[in-house]
This record gives sequence, C-alpha cells and structure tokens, in this order.
Amino acid sequence: MDSLEEKTVKSETIFEGKIVKLVVDDVVLPNGAMSKREIVKHPGAVAVIAITPENKMIMVEQFRKPLENTIVEIPAGKIEPNEAPELTAGRELEEETGYKTEDLTHLVSFYTSPGFADELLHIYLAGDIHKQANPLQADEDEFVNILEVSLDEALQLIEENVICDAKTVYAVQYWQLRNAIN
Amino acid sequence: MDSLEEKTVKSETIFEGKIVKLVVDDVVLPNGAMSKREIVKHPGAVAVIAITPENKMIMVEQFRKPLENTIVEIPAGKIEPNEAPELTAGRELEEETGYKTEDLTHLVSFYTSPGFADELLHIYLAGDIHKQANPLQADEDEFVNILEVSLDEALQLIEENVICDAKTVYAVQYWQLRNAIN
Repeated sequence: MDSLEEKTVKSETIFEGKIVKLVVDDVVLPNGAMSKREIVKHPGAVAVIAITPENKMIMVEQFRKPLENTIVEIPAGKIEPNEAPELTAGRELEEETGYKTEDLTHLVSFYTSPGFADELLHIYLAGDIHKQANPLQADEDEFVNILEVSLDEALQLIEENVICDAKTVYAVQYWQLRNAIN
Repeated sequence: MDSLEEKTVKSETIFEGKIVKLVVDDVVLPNGAMSKREIVKHPGAVAVIAITPENKMIMVEQFRKPLENTIVEIPAGKIEPNEAPELTAGRELEEETGYKTEDLTHLVSFYTSPGFADELLHIYLAGDIHKQANPLQADEDEFVNILEVSLDEALQLIEENVICDAKTVYAVQYWQLRNAIN
C-alpha cells in the first residue's frame, strides 16, 4: 500500500536517554501536504507467561513511575543490545521471580503503541518452570514483589485495575482462551 | 505497597509536542539510591471492536511512521482534551470507517507500555453498527483504507505480522474467546 506511505524529509533527534530516544520527523503525507511525527524509539522488550504446576500465573508487583502507581504484571524486561529476545525472556523470568525454564515458546509479538512508539514486545510461554536456589540478581534499580495468582484472582485484579497493562491483560485472556478450548 | 514507591526529587520537561510530552524524573529508589526515569506523557486513546452482521471485524490499514510500515489495526484514536473516552470511540469509528453506533460497551482499559509511558487505552465493543451516508471526516493528516476481515483472515494476518499491535492482537483474541465460550 504505497499510497499510504509518509516520506521523511527531515529527522531531528530531540533526546537520547538510557531507555528511550525521541525523534521528530517532518513528513510528506500521501496528499502532498506536510506534517510532523513525534516518534519514541525503544529497544524492544519481552514478557513471559509462566504457569506453575498448581495452575497459578507468576506475576510481579512493581512501582511504575509513569503511572505513579504500583501495578501487577507478568515478568518482563527490555532487550539488551545484541541480546536475542528468547534469552532476554529466560533471563528476566529468573531475575525477577527466581524461576528458571529451558522451555520457551514464542506466542506473539506486538507493537505496544504504533502511533508514537516503535517498541516491539515479544511474549513467550514458559513450560517446565522450576525454582532456582541461586537465581540471577535483578537490576540494581528494579524492586519487585513476586505473586502467584489463580485465573479467578487475575480476573478480579483486572476488575480492580491492579492488572492494567496491555501484556498482562493479553496474558490473562490467553489463559482464559486456553482453558476454554481445552 | 509503599515500600516499592519511587519518590520524585526533580522533574524536567525535555519536550512538549502535539502528541507526546517527554519528562525525565530524578527519583529516590526504595533502597535510598538515586535513579532517573524517562517518561512519555500521552493524552490516552480509545479503540473499537466492531463486528458486522456478516461476522467480519472492521479494521483499518494505516501507515505508522514509527514502524515505517503499513499495518492493519482496529479503529482507534487519541482522546481530545476534555473528551469522554466513549465519545472518542464513537467519533473515531465514524471518522475512520464511516460506521456509526449508539451501542458502546467498555471492555477493558490498559496501559500500553507502563515502563516508559502513561498512555491509557480504552477498548470498546460496538454493537448495532450501521453505515453512515455522510460520515464525519477523518483528521486531515490521517489516511486509511477500510477492511472487513473474518476471524480466520485476522489470525492469518497475525501470522504474517500485518496485524501486529497490542490492541488488535487483543481484539482478535477477544473474538476467539467469545466464539469459544458461546
């Protein structure tokens, strides 16, 4: 669909941070008019759906500064330079929860907010998870509480807006669907 | 969970654009150490799941500058100042697709990327949709093609990474789940 394409005539980097980079592009629209696009560049991230033998999903409670609130999410983290997403997934699961897996299945990848950001999030399903005696340590600026929640509890946490982010809402719905078709 | 909270000691606005605002906060971590948080502020958005009487989901094909690619999404748009999300939902559906509805049910709201952005996306289910003879006009810098896709086609488009954003992947899974439990 070439007719929808927007051609860049100028690209200005406004900010380069530790996590995000902000760029403003001047573009030519399909009708020839000019516009500006504000673009947040992000290295990408992974998230892990991990269900225990007791049929609980492993989640982490974490303060999220953009929301000024503590919310409950599936384990996730951003991809380090040159790191394969599957390695990130195993590493983040272990760092954040102390659980290890050698069995990761890629379920889906999606852009979290394609209107203004290029963040691509890869979601994996972890099979055969087991507690590590000496797990990898979390990032020094990351503090989380680990939770194990049943499907009913997860649905209740969505009702209460405690589970309130795209990847975790997706993960709970994935769990519902898996139960419904099995 | 007060113990996970990060206290702001300084907040610097780096950029204020038409869509996003970028802020860098200096924070005190739960262990007393200092860190920086890069935060993208966004007015919030809505998306609409609209299924025709022929059991096709209405989608739009749109060029997304952050991805440098044309992708297929459910109708969506950002909330205007002081606009109730439900009004945004009805307006965006009509502007982008020419379909109108008086029947919107709120399904879920989620933060698209809580690690670095405060964008909250509200998803509505549209009932009783009907083509408008003279629909509202789209934004002058927005160009879309309208598609109607079956569930099988939607699943195929996910396989092909043409449907590849959080809200639309969620919407297709919602549709699968609704079919599975009905």
